[in-house]
Amino acid sequence: MTTQIKALMFDVFGTVVDWRSSVSNDLAAFFAPRGLTRDWTQMAVDWRAMYQPAMEAVRSGTRDYVILDELHRENLDALLAAYDISGLTAAELDHINRAWHRLHPWPDCVEGLTGLRKRYILATASNGNTALMVNLARFGGLPWDAILGAAHTRSYKPTAQTYLGTAEALGLTPAECMMVAAHNDDLVAARALGFATAFVCRPLEHGPDQTTDLTAESDWDHVCDSMIDLCNRLL
Amino acid sequence: MTTQIKALMFDVFGTVVDWRSSVSNDLAAFFAPRGLTRDWTQMAVDWRAMYQPAMEAVRSGTRDYVILDELHRENLDALLAAYDISGLTAAELDHINRAWHRLHPWPDCVEGLTGLRKRYILATASNGNTALMVNLARFGGLPWDAILGAAHTRSYKPTAQTYLGTAEALGLTPAECMMVAAHNDDLVAARALGFATAFVCRPLEHGPDQTTDLTAESDWDHVCDSMIDLCNRLL
Repeated sequence: MTTQIKALMFDVFGTVVDWRSSVSNDLAAFFAPRGLTRDWTQMAVDWRAMYQPAMEAVRSGTRDYVILDELHRENLDALLAAYDISGLTAAELDHINRAWHRLHPWPDCVEGLTGLRKRYILATASNGNTALMVNLARFGGLPWDAILGAAHTRSYKPTAQTYLGTAEALGLTPAECMMVAAHNDDLVAARALGFATAFVCRPLEHGPDQTTDLTAESDWDHVCDSMIDLCNRLL
Repeated sequence: MTTQIKALMFDVFGTVVDWRSSVSNDLAAFFAPRGLTRDWTQMAVDWRAMYQPAMEAVRSGTRDYVILDELHRENLDALLAAYDISGLTAAELDHINRAWHRLHPWPDCVEGLTGLRKRYILATASNGNTALMVNLARFGGLPWDAILGAAHTRSYKPTAQTYLGTAEALGLTPAECMMVAAHNDDLVAARALGFATAFVCRPLEHGPDQTTDLTAESDWDHVCDSMIDLCNRLL
């Protein structure tokens, strides 16, 4: 099966980058010097918790597609109100919102992706918008061949169009592409459309007490514990 | 002015890659061992000459957007008929059509682009589709941060949307982006929309007898003779 695979499509938040510690550290770096004290990790987690509901409004057709930066920005207003933080300038709010552009890759990613790219086309199939994905790639040294997913299809996973439009842009069939994700539900959606699947376990995405996605919940084509592991299996 | 530029947007055919000699050599490499004799350079030139009329049908609304690979493939049928070549399989026709995915960069491009990428986001703003641009980048070692242009906007230059949609995807205003092209008309269109402009002269794009685009026909922000020259000016 692997021999016909020409491209790997990657989920990014959680699979490639560690959003939880990165956003938490970014919030601390901004607010602590200003004398504020909050639970920055919980604040990052709460911000992330608004992510799926915000996209669901788009997926359900309640609102037109807007890029993830805009959803993050709307959610930031609610987040700051909940944490009793106010008085920020527009430039400061924009800086904070771009915490999502400054997420550190998991330590195995640059080496693993660089290896995988020798044989496969590497594309993002993330819900992040183009600028966010480009900035993440430059920040973390991620060697993507193309930024696709929501950035290209103007639809949010797990909508079929987000996966299918990514393969189509690459001129490939789903069977020629493998979806790589740390989330079982992402792989369920991709497999249903004919994509090959690789699960990369990220047991610390949600911190030390994580309860979800600790194991492969189906017989995914590959089950790995890092991008280097995936690289070793596919090359 | 240059200090506010955050991204460079590149025309690709002619500006970054030498389509004329590449397609000519690719046709010769395929057909010569099969015993055919034709003027392969003229055949490449004739194929390229069908490019603008094919896109014009899309730009004018006569037909819906189709990717450039498809326009090239339609034009290939007419080209082969004109050169009295027939009897090719679907796989052979596909291989020949992908000559446009195997175009060699001008010798200064990899070094120049690699240097420019240290400071600027580099995006394609080409009429080529995603798969074509990805394959070109992998073939020639072109370090793009994002494949945009027609691949993203589903419109062909010089339509405003192709330029504006590229800047929008990067989260930037036109004034924060510089269009880089070897074609004065590309820069005319970009400047009218507020983009900065850089002309990179490619006096051999159309061979030794080239008569067009030998000089900057306006006061472009930068006028260069290579990507290395552009890099030296901008870094």
